[in-house]
Amino acid sequence: MDKKGLLIVISGPSGAGKGTVVKEIIKNNDDFSLSVSATTRKPRNYEIDGEHYFFKSRMEFEDLIKEGKMLEYACFCSEYYGTPVDYVLNKLEEGKNVILEIEVQGALQVKEKYPDAVLIFLTPDNIYELKDRLIKRGSETEEKINMRTERAKEEILLVDKYDYIVINRVVKTAACDIVKIVQSEKNKAFRNLSIKETFLRNKGGEF
Amino acid sequence: MDKKGLLIVISGPSGAGKGTVVKEIIKNNDDFSLSVSATTRKPRNYEIDGEHYFFKSRMEFEDLIKEGKMLEYACFCSEYYGTPVDYVLNKLEEGKNVILEIEVQGALQVKEKYPDAVLIFLTPDNIYELKDRLIKRGSETEEKINMRTERAKEEILLVDKYDYIVINRVVKTAACDIVKIVQSEKNKAFRNLSIKETFLRNKGGEF
Repeated sequence: MDKKGLLIVISGPSGAGKGTVVKEIIKNNDDFSLSVSATTRKPRNYEIDGEHYFFKSRMEFEDLIKEGKMLEYACFCSEYYGTPVDYVLNKLEEGKNVILEIEVQGALQVKEKYPDAVLIFLTPDNIYELKDRLIKRGSETEEKINMRTERAKEEILLVDKYDYIVINRVVKTAACDIVKIVQSEKNKAFRNLSIKETFLRNKGGEF
Repeated sequence: MDKKGLLIVISGPSGAGKGTVVKEIIKNNDDFSLSVSATTRKPRNYEIDGEHYFFKSRMEFEDLIKEGKMLEYACFCSEYYGTPVDYVLNKLEEGKNVILEIEVQGALQVKEKYPDAVLIFLTPDNIYELKDRLIKRGSETEEKINMRTERAKEEILLVDKYDYIVINRVVKTAACDIVKIVQSEKNKAFRNLSIKETFLRNKGGEF
């Protein structure tokens, strides 16, 4: 079997519980690693460069874009956020399954640049549950919550572009489903065609 | 999620351990069921019709072929063996994942007729191990063992046509890998596109 890691993109509507599910996966699986994003926004007090984000100047970030070194990026509130490709590729080479937890638009950018990526859409059962969760978070105005649920209605229409759908009812189960998906993807025939040669190799490793 | 079962085809070289792995899966998973083949050969003393095989006359079998009611079939030693499509479809409707444990040629016939089938190639690491296993079985002549390993060399070249490859080193692990593959396949986006409607349905189940 191929020893390289897989690139896993987890996205879905805001309030789906992406962050919690990803933390659960990382906590229990040494072979999974969360990607570190780059941003031009200023670091907060507790944030460490290279751990929470790679903090970049606007010029540095735009150079990375021009050189094709961002796997995906977007601009929110006039700050850039994105995924540096070198960081991800190094982790994959080390054999880590790298998780990107990103927005739907970014997810589709990744699949275009790196078709081997596995796209997982994480969502609650329905929009009413999504809204309940956003209300329970208690961190946002009603207006912002309505904006997010409206966006969710558009995002759900893009599930066709994803490889898998995971319904997040129970965090542990959703995390487990995602780990199983990654393990099964490693058994995909197209990732293991070297068996055609190794099958005929003798015990000493030679033909 | 779709409640229907999946059709799982497990094939691979003779001596790969298909029978043992399949038994292990069925023993531990109520939602999996082994398909019952039809044959024209005479039942042995202990064999029960509908349990070990569906025993058919040559004319009955050929009628089933003509009516397109065999998912796959082959002729060995002038007796027919095959998979009756109605039996399989009924089990799938009941929500069972139906396992077909069949030869490579039959597997490819199934994929052609029923593209939703999941094809899994089960194999030992290499041909030397395969030969060791056939020798340890102690039930076959050296000539027959050589014939089987020669055929395995041809079969391995067809792995491209399969969806997954599972290496059978430890029976329990291989069985577990297959169960994970089936569970993950159920999360495939294309099997769950109804989420686009159910996501917007209200709590009472109506729009």
